[in-house]
Order: sequence, then C-alpha cells, then structure tokens
Amino acid sequence: MVAMDEFHPSNRILMGPGPSDVHPRVLKAMATPLIGHLDPEFLRIMDDIKAMAQATFQTKNDLTFVVSAPGSAGMETVLVNLLEPGDHALICIHGVFGGRMKDIAERCGAEVSTVEAPWGEPINPDDVKAAVATHRPKVVAIVHAETSTGVLQPLEEISDIVHDAGALLVVDAVTSYCGTDLKVDDWGIDAVYSGTQKCLSAPPGLSPVSFSARAVEALDNRKTKVQSWFLDLTMVKNYWAGAKRAYHHTGPISAMYALREAYRLVLEEGLENRFKRHHDTHLLLKDGLEALGFTYLVDPSYRLPMLNAVKLPAGLDDASTRSRLLNEFNIEVGGGLGKFAGKLWRVGLMGESCDANHVNMLLSALKTITN
Amino acid sequence: MVAMDEFHPSNRILMGPGPSDVHPRVLKAMATPLIGHLDPEFLRIMDDIKAMAQATFQTKNDLTFVVSAPGSAGMETVLVNLLEPGDHALICIHGVFGGRMKDIAERCGAEVSTVEAPWGEPINPDDVKAAVATHRPKVVAIVHAETSTGVLQPLEEISDIVHDAGALLVVDAVTSYCGTDLKVDDWGIDAVYSGTQKCLSAPPGLSPVSFSARAVEALDNRKTKVQSWFLDLTMVKNYWAGAKRAYHHTGPISAMYALREAYRLVLEEGLENRFKRHHDTHLLLKDGLEALGFTYLVDPSYRLPMLNAVKLPAGLDDASTRSRLLNEFNIEVGGGLGKFAGKLWRVGLMGESCDANHVNMLLSALKTITN
Repeated sequence: MVAMDEFHPSNRILMGPGPSDVHPRVLKAMATPLIGHLDPEFLRIMDDIKAMAQATFQTKNDLTFVVSAPGSAGMETVLVNLLEPGDHALICIHGVFGGRMKDIAERCGAEVSTVEAPWGEPINPDDVKAAVATHRPKVVAIVHAETSTGVLQPLEEISDIVHDAGALLVVDAVTSYCGTDLKVDDWGIDAVYSGTQKCLSAPPGLSPVSFSARAVEALDNRKTKVQSWFLDLTMVKNYWAGAKRAYHHTGPISAMYALREAYRLVLEEGLENRFKRHHDTHLLLKDGLEALGFTYLVDPSYRLPMLNAVKLPAGLDDASTRSRLLNEFNIEVGGGLGKFAGKLWRVGLMGESCDANHVNMLLSALKTITN
Repeated sequence: MVAMDEFHPSNRILMGPGPSDVHPRVLKAMATPLIGHLDPEFLRIMDDIKAMAQATFQTKNDLTFVVSAPGSAGMETVLVNLLEPGDHALICIHGVFGGRMKDIAERCGAEVSTVEAPWGEPINPDDVKAAVATHRPKVVAIVHAETSTGVLQPLEEISDIVHDAGALLVVDAVTSYCGTDLKVDDWGIDAVYSGTQKCLSAPPGLSPVSFSARAVEALDNRKTKVQSWFLDLTMVKNYWAGAKRAYHHTGPISAMYALREAYRLVLEEGLENRFKRHHDTHLLLKDGLEALGFTYLVDPSYRLPMLNAVKLPAGLDDASTRSRLLNEFNIEVGGGLGKFAGKLWRVGLMGESCDANHVNMLLSALKTITN
C-alpha cells in the first residue's frame, strides 16, 4: 500500500464530555521508553498508582487498582464479577449510562429490575427503598454523575437504604472522580469504577476501580467462574497485589506512565482545591452561557460542575454551530446523547480543561458565531 | 498522602516475550496533544489504522480493526463473538495460550474438546482431522506462534481440514504478526487477533483483529447476545465503520496515535524485509547462544525467529542470571511460563528489539556473567 504521511492533528480545545485536555507533564511521561510489565520497577509503578487511586477514591480498600481498558470495561468488570446467573440486580436509570449498566447486568444472566427517574433529574431514594423491599437484590447500581444529563446524584441516603437491605452498592463515578467529592469509604460504596479521560485528565484507555471488603467477600463466595477471562478479578488481583505478582495479561505500560503523572498532578493540587476549581469555573461558565440564552437542563441543587448540560437558545442550530466551533475555533463541545441528541449540548470543564481561559475561549467564540 | 517523586525508569533493553523496544517516532507520536474520540480527524486516524491493519494482516476483510485493550482481550473478543452456549469449540493446545483459549471458550458456555501436542512441538494436522470428524465443531482455534514454547505452527493444511469440515478457523497471531509471514486471506483464516507490543513495537494495550465474511455471517446469525458488552462486535463495528460512526466507548486516543506511527514504520520497511530481518537476526542470536551452551527447545523446522525458547547450560541458574542481566546490564529476557518455569529462557527479537546490536549486547553480557 502507499505509505501514509505523518499525522498532524489540529490543536483542539477539548470541552466536551471527555477526553479532556492533558497536561504536558502527562504527555511527556507517556513518551518515556518502555520497561517490561513484570519488571520490579514497573511493579513499583503499579504500587504507586494503587496508592494514589486509594487516595483519590478516599478509600482504604485493598482491592483498588486500574483495569487495562476504558471506563466501559470498568463498568463491565464490576458487574461481571459481582453478578452470577440468577442474582438479582436493581439498576437505577436516569440517563444513558444507567441503561448501559442494565444491558451488562442482563448479559451476566442476572434478573434485572429498574428504578427510573426522568432524564435530567436524580433518582428518588424513596423509589429505591420500595424497590429493594420488593426485589431483595444482591446489587444496587447507580450513576453518580450522569454524563448524558449533567445530574449529580446524592448517594448517602441511598447507600443506607441499600445496606439496610443487605445489598451491595455499585457506583459509576466516571465523570465525577477527581472533579467533585467522592467518599468511597464514608459513603459505603462497595464497588466503584471511573475513567482516566475526564477530571483526572489522563488519556482515555484505563479504568480505576475499587472494591470494599463486602464486595471481595461476594467475589470469594461465587459459585461460578466469572464469564470474562480478561476481567476476572480472581486472577487480575494477583497481578496487582499478593506475594507473587503473577502474570495475567501484559499491562499497558505507557498508559500507566501517563496515569501516574496525572495522579501526581491531582495530589499536588489537592482534592479540595481541585473540587473548588471545578465548582468555581462552572459558575463562571454558567453566567456566560445564560447571558447568551442557554438554559440548564438540571436544577442547580443537582447540577454537575464538570458536565454542563444546556439547552440551546432559540434559533441556534446544534450541528452547524458545533461544526463551526470545531472548524473555525478548534473547540470541541459535546452534543446530546440518546433522547437528547440534537437538543442539548454537553460542555465539559474537566481537569486540565477546567479554567477561566477555556471558559473565555468558548464564550468569545460563541459570541462571534451568534452575532 | 505524601507527594510522590517523578518517575525515572532505568533504560531497559527489552529482549523478553514483549513488550519490545519502541521507536522514538512512536513515543513522540504518542505525546501528541489529544483530540476527541468522535472528532472527524480521529475517525480518519481510525480509517488509516484499519487500512494498515488490513495490509499487515494481508487481508481484504472489511471487519478489521483494533480492540481497545491488550491481546488477551483480543482473544476474548474473537471467542465471545463467535461462540454461543452449546456451540462446539475444538481448541488446539501446545502451550500456555492454547490453554487460555480453552478457558475462555468454556466461559462462553461452549462445549470444548481439545487436540494437544507436547509443549515445544506443533499440532499434528492428522490429530485435527480426526477431532473435527468426531466433534463437528463450529470453531477450531489454534496458536500460530506459541509465546510460551517458541513453536511456529504451520497453518495451511489445518485450514483446509477445518474448512472441509465446515468450521471456522481462529488463529492467535499475537507473537507472529509483523515478524513472520501471516497470510490471513490466502490461508483462509476466519478470525485472527494480535497484540501491539510484540513485532509491531507499539506500546502494549491494543489488539488488532480481523474477521472473514464467513465469520461475520456467523456473528450475524447469533441467537443470543454476546455476553460481553465491551467486546460486542455488533456494536463496536459501528464505531469503526458504517455510515454513522456511532459512539460505543471512548477510544484510546494516545495509544492509537502510537499505533498509527508503528504501522507506518512497518510499511516503510516492507513486510518481506521485516520478516527477513527477524529471520536473519534470529540466526545470529542462535549461533551466539549455542556457542555459550544454550540449546533450543524446538526443532529448527518449527522454530520462531522472534521468540527463542532455549534451555540453560548446565550450572547456569535461571533467576539469579536473569536478575544480573536486568540489574547490571539493563537487559530483560523472559523466563519460562507454566511447566517451563525455571527451566527455559524466552529471548525475544521483536520489532525494534530485533537487530544485531541487541544480539551483541546480550551475548556480551552473558559472556561477562558466565566467565
């Protein structure tokens, strides 16, 4: 075949639902020459990453590590390990990603029931209470930050309900992790997964996860093999910990270099400072977007700071405006997903993409386009 | 927690079973700032990668793409999509990775029978012929290059046997791909998977795969959902091709930048030149290792050029010698896997790690250690 040219991408400003901009230190770390996946130096990198994952999840869970695949594989890792055929799973759905959890739980052979809320609203704890009383599920799964709607789901009351019913609480924290408070231990979360390409601002491709002692007990008491070999924690955990650090699959060396540096940046800033930056920048963006006629889908009390789901002003066309933003200003914002396709924008302020300069670039570009 | 220092890995020479050394052009490409996973420019990168995957697999298969996870996930992608509960899979086992395929096929709910050969020998086509006559399998799976033993498995005769019996031929080409000839179309391979960290010399984390029209037909005729959501080709293929390039999961942007550049290097060299380089460098290493008292496990007629499985000379200790190679000379070679643990070395000559300088470095270091 004809040789292809070198690739020179445009210099995009990433303000969609992820990936977010990546700090030059992370890019530089990723370009470090490789070492082996069983090299003692690489095992130390894994230990470092585990410790920083624990710190950022605010957990002491020993089974805290990083799945060698994107956030969707983290979702599947959690469900496929905790569910066996015939188990009952209660899935809370208030957007695309709750629906995805239901699909995966069904593929695990679980009996699935759902609690739903209108897209743009959080799940009502009373509905969860009624459903766990009816179904006595093994697992209740809920999305903390619905990337499709911009809703921040309060978790503490639901956690109590789930544990009072003897079930395990599974939380999708793909978009909230490292951008708003997420207290895995204090809130009693039994299994949590996230992605690297949102508020952590590492490249996409990995999924940090953490499992409580109760979740590990459920895993140890399985009667059947986990249906996925690649995601089977009974094996993966021996690569991440334990006396013998056994080979399972080849770890993604370069992506782990990048993740280690991204975690260092998070901890240098400090979680509280980082959460405040996301909150403050969100308010700046909100004022600017509202002045241009955009309106928020979600009530302020449940609004995500890092994922701004906004309805377009009358007369502004979705596709052509996003296309102009991308082609004339190099700015990416996200369109609506699922039932919101064509009707909503999702403006991301995640990690390195969350600062006043990004907000000003976007607002200036929008003013130029709409004038 | 206490902030961690910047990470400065040792400057390793990678001569194990993968990862292999990565070209500076690939590292540089990986450090390119990110664009979005649905950006038109990224979709073009995916198209480029698909075209170069087709060229290197020597196939016109339209369903040729890259799984967003390491080679083991590529193995699982192939089996989980082609097998349904109750299907019969015949798995050829002559090393660790045939055993892994059996494990995965069983997790798919398939009935599994096996054809085995002693570790260090190829599978005998007559045994496959007898087994397909007995079991009438839907799928026959075999490893082209057994990374645990160093055996190169001839495929053409077995392919005819499999197709005469109406079955699909699945091939593990993790270690052979881009290092020795692999003619997916000419040899009638129905599904093939590989990894990026062997003779392709990109970082680990992705798995190129390709499916024949017959395999796609089997996929289209499934009666049940694929048990893995993340690996379900009925959805993944719409992200890689088709009119609407639908979102499935967030593609691993930086790893794809690296892969594109690694493919460019392969095609600039040319497949035939690359295969010859692997062959010639293998002979150079062989002469040197044999002069030092190492002996090859595998008969020359079935010997892999890029994975040299050698028994240690009398008196040379496995663990302490590999430890000295790593700590004093920064050279990584692989130890034995499975039943060969402690008894065998696996010396890799893969991609960028395959040249006379690498061979000379290793032989010199070994001479110093053994003198």
